[in-house]
Amino acid sequence: MDSVDKFKRYRERMNSRILSGGNLGIKRFFALDSRAYEKGALDVKTKELLGLVASMVLRCNDCITYHVIRCVQEGVSDDQFFEALNVTLIVGGSITIPHIRRAVETLDQCREKQRSRGL
Amino acid sequence: MDSVDKFKRYRERMNSRILSGGNLGIKRFFALDSRAYEKGALDVKTKELLGLVASMVLRCNDCITYHVIRCVQEGVSDDQFFEALNVTLIVGGSITIPHIRRAVETLDQCREKQRSRGL
Amino acid sequence: MDSVDKFKRYRERMNSRILSGGNLGIKRFFALDSRAYEKGALDVKTKELLGLVASMVLRCNDCITYHVIRCVQEGVSDDQFFEALNVTLIVGGSITIPHIRRAVETLDQCREKQRSRGL
Amino acid sequence: MDSVDKFKRYRERMNSRILSGGNLGIKRFFALDSRAYEKGALDVKTKELLGLVASMVLRCNDCITYHVIRCVQEGVSDDQFFEALNVTLIVGGSITIPHIRRAVETLDQCREKQRSRGL
Amino acid sequence: MDSVDKFKRYRERMNSRILSGGNLGIKRFFALDSRAYEKGALDVKTKELLGLVASMVLRCNDCITYHVIRCVQEGVSDDQFFEALNVTLIVGGSITIPHIRRAVETLDQCREKQRSRGL
Amino acid sequence: MDSVDKFKRYRERMNSRILSGGNLGIKRFFALDSRAYEKGALDVKTKELLGLVASMVLRCNDCITYHVIRCVQEGVSDDQFFEALNVTLIVGGSITIPHIRRAVETLDQCREKQRSRGL
Repeated sequence: MDSVDKFKRYRERMNSRILSGGNLGIKRFFALDSRAYEKGALDVKTKELLGLVASMVLRCNDCITYHVIRCVQEGVSDDQFFEALNVTLIVGGSITIPHIRRAVETLDQCREKQRSRGL
Repeated sequence: MDSVDKFKRYRERMNSRILSGGNLGIKRFFALDSRAYEKGALDVKTKELLGLVASMVLRCNDCITYHVIRCVQEGVSDDQFFEALNVTLIVGGSITIPHIRRAVETLDQCREKQRSRGL
Repeated sequence: MDSVDKFKRYRERMNSRILSGGNLGIKRFFALDSRAYEKGALDVKTKELLGLVASMVLRCNDCITYHVIRCVQEGVSDDQFFEALNVTLIVGGSITIPHIRRAVETLDQCREKQRSRGL
Repeated sequence: MDSVDKFKRYRERMNSRILSGGNLGIKRFFALDSRAYEKGALDVKTKELLGLVASMVLRCNDCITYHVIRCVQEGVSDDQFFEALNVTLIVGGSITIPHIRRAVETLDQCREKQRSRGL
Repeated sequence: MDSVDKFKRYRERMNSRILSGGNLGIKRFFALDSRAYEKGALDVKTKELLGLVASMVLRCNDCITYHVIRCVQEGVSDDQFFEALNVTLIVGGSITIPHIRRAVETLDQCREKQRSRGL
Repeated sequence: MDSVDKFKRYRERMNSRILSGGNLGIKRFFALDSRAYEKGALDVKTKELLGLVASMVLRCNDCITYHVIRCVQEGVSDDQFFEALNVTLIVGGSITIPHIRRAVETLDQCREKQRSRGL
């Protein structure tokens, strides 16, 4: 199980635990969170790129991993990916570089999964 | 002169002053900053939306004003604009609301300018 | 009209404008935001203190003004207020001092209003 | 030894090391830090909740672990805990969710310790 | 009275007001804050540059104004000043540019004061 | 291989990977990043201290590890190091303490390496 799979499993398990806590506000927030990335006037791919860039400049590794996975699923190309990372590097500065490392590492793991499934 | 025009003038004047300071690193950074939003694998409109969302979650009013103006120039519709703001609100929380107020105020000023020019 | 009243008016006007934008996600977030501070297992006063401290360490002046007003309405004493500010100063450091200045300025305006109404 | 115990041990060891460095300013800051959460006009439980919320919105996992442990010691109930997390989620947005996961994981470890001691 | 003088007056007035609030923790923090920039193993000029860079990347205009004034008093040259700003621009990204504008504006006001006094 | 060596290896490997991505903007940013710390009107040691303090208050562990290593190479003494950490603690508050722990742990590893090489 690679780090992408470990993240997915941990995220799923803890989200269930949090929702089982019975707080209605948190439950509704989680619903709004999902809906924010659904197709509307902007398409899903653009919204996932927005989510990725927001996560990058706020420097949250788990959020970055999540949005990298989603961007790959939505067909973001490597060039598009690096251009989005360049925007985050310019806006957020060198302090984002450790997160660019993580984002690219996750991208490579996702591409590897795509290749192995494609065989 | 409304606040959008005041911002533009101040920004232009101070950027010239900063560049006149003779620091090569700063000068080159400013060049990279412009280039990051040019058309590449992602189009300019998408990149400006990325810049807007990054500025929103990092809560920088001057950066927000700049990217709202640019988004309007690139043809972002009101619905697209509000969807991008919704992503920032979800990612960044209620702490971004004062900046959503500013972004919408600037959007309204830009639309007003568009209408008055269109007559 | 003092700065507390100006803030209230601007906040009310722009919140109406934002909600008129027709984005359902934003509208629902605003509803969740209000409900988060309602009485539950924690009382309203404690929740407003939590909101104040969160706004202080995230350094958002408009959010601070809002929660100072609400804390005063919920009967937070000056000593309790300064102890909450001390927690923010310790957690967030001297970078929060300009916001402590604003918070105390707003507190003084609110106390002044209380006194003038009490006559 | 679970992650709560590991954290406690590491924290204790490194705090001793830092204080042995001989910097008087750091030593005095550590003393002020402890005192900020002592009983005053606000009770200890409220202050620990303030510390937890501040740590959550500033997204510092070690600080979160520390304040979760302290909140449990001060008798914060699960419902109160989740309401405080809801405030942080509303104020700080989805970027705080990975930290909510950690906070709840730590809470569960603390409750487990309480149960095993209670037998 | 220019904006540097206005800032100084407001800062002095509100700091007195805060200290009059009677919270011992806040009072002691203010004392530690002053001492952190006194001569030790590092000289005052270096410490003020550290304070400036910290304020820049954390993007606090009042803190920036304060440390620019102090850097000028400690004899930081324009070239040294711009090199420190370049470090902040690289580390913190374009989101710091509005604060670089403010820092340079304050620097120019301080230099103007130096010149007028020098006549 | 201790954590300092692991960090160096990971950093080197991923930086190569990122630069191999072919994005010109990112490549140029990395070049500007290196140049920002070269000798100019400020010496290298001062610039590395600025980089350390910026990394501390922005709370980025990888950046902290990098600048601690560089500060040690540039001859920063333990007393100077702790004074810089004190400035970050005052400016950034207790939320930086977990990063002070990491910085001191890295410092100790670097001193240990210096000693073992010196034999």
